[in-house]
Amino acid sequence: MNSIYVDNNATTKVDPKAIEAMLPYLSEFYGNPSSMHSFGGEIGKKIKEARAEVASLINAEPDEIIFTSCGTESNNTAILSGIHSLPAKKHIITTRVEHPAVKNVYENLAREGYRVTFVPVDRYGRINLDYLYDNLTDDTAIVSIMWANNETGVIFPIEEIAKVLSEKDILFHTDAVQAVGKIPIDVQKVNAGMLSISGHKIHAPKGVGALYLRKGTRFSPFLIGGHQEKGRRGGTENVASIIGLGKASLLAMENLAIKNSKTAQLRDRLESEILKQVPNSMVNGDKENRLPGTTNISFEYVEGEAILLMMNELGICASSGSACTSGSLEPSHVLRAMGIPYTAAHGSIRFSLSKYNTDEEVDFIIKNIPPIIEKLRQLSPFWHENNQAGTAQAKSA
Amino acid sequence: MNSIYVDNNATTKVDPKAIEAMLPYLSEFYGNPSSMHSFGGEIGKKIKEARAEVASLINAEPDEIIFTSCGTESNNTAILSGIHSLPAKKHIITTRVEHPAVKNVYENLAREGYRVTFVPVDRYGRINLDYLYDNLTDDTAIVSIMWANNETGVIFPIEEIAKVLSEKDILFHTDAVQAVGKIPIDVQKVNAGMLSISGHKIHAPKGVGALYLRKGTRFSPFLIGGHQEKGRRGGTENVASIIGLGKASLLAMENLAIKNSKTAQLRDRLESEILKQVPNSMVNGDKENRLPGTTNISFEYVEGEAILLMMNELGICASSGSACTSGSLEPSHVLRAMGIPYTAAHGSIRFSLSKYNTDEEVDFIIKNIPPIIEKLRQLSPFWHENNQAGTAQAKSA
Repeated sequence: MNSIYVDNNATTKVDPKAIEAMLPYLSEFYGNPSSMHSFGGEIGKKIKEARAEVASLINAEPDEIIFTSCGTESNNTAILSGIHSLPAKKHIITTRVEHPAVKNVYENLAREGYRVTFVPVDRYGRINLDYLYDNLTDDTAIVSIMWANNETGVIFPIEEIAKVLSEKDILFHTDAVQAVGKIPIDVQKVNAGMLSISGHKIHAPKGVGALYLRKGTRFSPFLIGGHQEKGRRGGTENVASIIGLGKASLLAMENLAIKNSKTAQLRDRLESEILKQVPNSMVNGDKENRLPGTTNISFEYVEGEAILLMMNELGICASSGSACTSGSLEPSHVLRAMGIPYTAAHGSIRFSLSKYNTDEEVDFIIKNIPPIIEKLRQLSPFWHENNQAGTAQAKSA
Repeated sequence: MNSIYVDNNATTKVDPKAIEAMLPYLSEFYGNPSSMHSFGGEIGKKIKEARAEVASLINAEPDEIIFTSCGTESNNTAILSGIHSLPAKKHIITTRVEHPAVKNVYENLAREGYRVTFVPVDRYGRINLDYLYDNLTDDTAIVSIMWANNETGVIFPIEEIAKVLSEKDILFHTDAVQAVGKIPIDVQKVNAGMLSISGHKIHAPKGVGALYLRKGTRFSPFLIGGHQEKGRRGGTENVASIIGLGKASLLAMENLAIKNSKTAQLRDRLESEILKQVPNSMVNGDKENRLPGTTNISFEYVEGEAILLMMNELGICASSGSACTSGSLEPSHVLRAMGIPYTAAHGSIRFSLSKYNTDEEVDFIIKNIPPIIEKLRQLSPFWHENNQAGTAQAKSA
């Protein structure tokens, strides 16, 4: 049985062209780019090319790109650099809906004595901008706000936020791991000091990421070692994967608007058909400002994990919450921050599509989701207690 | 022209069998191991296998292995975990000859107020054990000493040091990046709390490493994010490279004694022939306790970089100092710590051999090094000033 993979916010299939670009640097050209001999030195040139390719994806200068091992490392680096560069400031801001690679760093810093402001979101996952702006002080070292949410796909008004913060001379970092390669990003228009990129979310391999560091932004390295990345990140360069990230960056820019339009059409059909066919189902998140491939749908009175297991039996791969928080019995911190009732948050499923998804796959999902939900609801005492009308409606559907 | 690669302490050729093991996980099996669906979950089982394989290389338990992005990350993690776990202690110890991934972290900590003891080495690169033991105090949080030096190949008496430190209940970390896979390592016999491993030094790909964490050792994570690695290292697992590291670990153990004997024979012939044919040349480091493939040879009154460039023209890839410190005009901090005179330290070349080197390659190097040194010395005013006798000797050779 072939899998239908609609879990692209968790990770993506590596583009075969990216693998093709990587392979020679995994096998025959294995030198160390820091070496004096040309066997290694030639590899340095390929890294330089990849740096320019990744830079072009967000309209940055090549020197503003630091290669890292993943989005988590990029996020950790940005936040810790921010506070180390401004040691006198003891207030930091983020939102209630960040990825654990930001949220957990902020929580650690709170334990170390930092005053942390967690900006709330509304029922649609939209950030409360007044709350953010009202909490900016002279003591604020760094503000870290994701560009797009991994669970709902909601896109934040990063350009506006960056403008306000740059006028106040406050360092702004954005975790753009879910946004880069999916929507146009231009750091010439968005005045962020730092921006995080992850390879495996954009059809590059796992184990490589990048941090955009705006020229002139104070910086303190996270990984301390050799002089690699101009002294900004120690450790021998992950050559093949860096080259794969460069290639994937070029590929992401190719026909971005056309690919997005196709992905959004598939997502919209999936979403509207499920909402039509399944009673007591609803979309979580601002439909007006979303990534093209993401929909987060709550099915009241059923467990997300049960839905996932039944989908899995049919080869449909999706998720509840983010992969990085799975294994927890608590509903997603993102949906809780949005005030989604427990009865709905527990039964939420994230479908995240990519350029590789097809009409046939969406047809298959649309056909199979309603009977799965119906079956699970028949087993659910909560459903019978709370939704006699809904049950009748579901049966007749 | 084919390269003769004798720079294996900088990085190694990935074993084709490791690449073969990786490829399916770079292409078709691209799921996220944290996912609920079996497409991702199956990949988690492969990571478990790789963890057991890496553990077996040092006779550890699988759960004692944490995958990282490189040796630098492993070293940073170990040292910072050590001090964070014992926040009241403000004294830390290392040696004068560590890799920058340890040395520079200690220097940063010194600037933050830690009292740092840098243990000296003698003319042969041997650690001064009395100095180490005399400086242990109740305030000592962590001792970090490499298992084998990257520039000279000198092996330190880690088993003895670990025994002394465990009796005093002081946390011991060893950067074993150059030792693992080259000499037998058994953490059941060597009581270190943490031990660093790098993939690309043992014919696994760049961009993956591991940290051994002895059961019961207090630990504080370095990369903060999701629950990966049992909460000990955030970030989506670098699946393909982890599988490559597992395979490379198995391969490293196969016939280790036979491979080492062959490598040591090649190295010994290379070394003794060069010493015989080139006047004013000498080996740096304790020949009795060295990695099988490493020799560091000083050629007085010539510049190492000039030698490397001329070797490079012939396709011979070696290095002066470590790749991670190249680009600096200062002679290696390791050779300076050993008290090697500047006239010799500047002209030092590290040859580091692996299982892939052949007799023919060593013949070629032996044939070509003496004329290179002779030619460079003819151009060197220091040679003429200081070694009229040596010049005559070289000319007659």
